[in-house]
Amino acid sequence: MQYTVNITIALKEGMLDPEARAISNALEHLGIPTLSLSTARRFRIGLEAPTPEAAEERARECCERLLANPVIHRYEIEVA
Amino acid sequence: MQYTVNITIALKEGMLDPEARAISNALEHLGIPTLSLSTARRFRIGLEAPTPEAAEERARECCERLLANPVIHRYEIEVA
Repeated sequence: MQYTVNITIALKEGMLDPEARAISNALEHLGIPTLSLSTARRFRIGLEAPTPEAAEERARECCERLLANPVIHRYEIEVA
Repeated sequence: MQYTVNITIALKEGMLDPEARAISNALEHLGIPTLSLSTARRFRIGLEAPTPEAAEERARECCERLLANPVIHRYEIEVA
C-alpha cells in the first residue's frame, strides 16, 4: 500500500530560534506586530508500507536517522 | 482577540526542489526508498486581530510582503 506521511520538525521548546526572531522583527518593521512566531520544516513523503503503523514507523526512522537532530528538534508524524 | 495562524509555504507544482531530491537520495542510501518527497516551511504566528478573517488577512500580508516569493511559492493559511 502507498501512504503519504507528513512530518513536521521544529525546535524543542526553549531553543533559541534566530530565524523566527529575525522574521518577527522584519514583520514589526512592516507594521505587522506579532505576539509569537515559530518556524518549522515540513516534509511530505510518499512511502510503500504494509500498514499505516508501518508507514509511521518508517517516517520515524526518516526523522531519527536523517531529518531531525534529537538534541534540538521535536517532530510530529501524521499518516494521511 | 488573539489568533494563531499556521502558514505553510511550499514550492509551486513543477518547481525543482533540489533539497527534496538530496533527502530522497540520502533516504534511499539508508534503505528507506520513497515514492515522492516534498519540502515546505511552516510558520506559526500569534496575532492580534478583531476577527478570524482579519487574522487570515494579516497572515496573507505576511506571506505577500515577506515570507513567500510569489513567483516560486504557494502558501496555505489556517487560522486556529
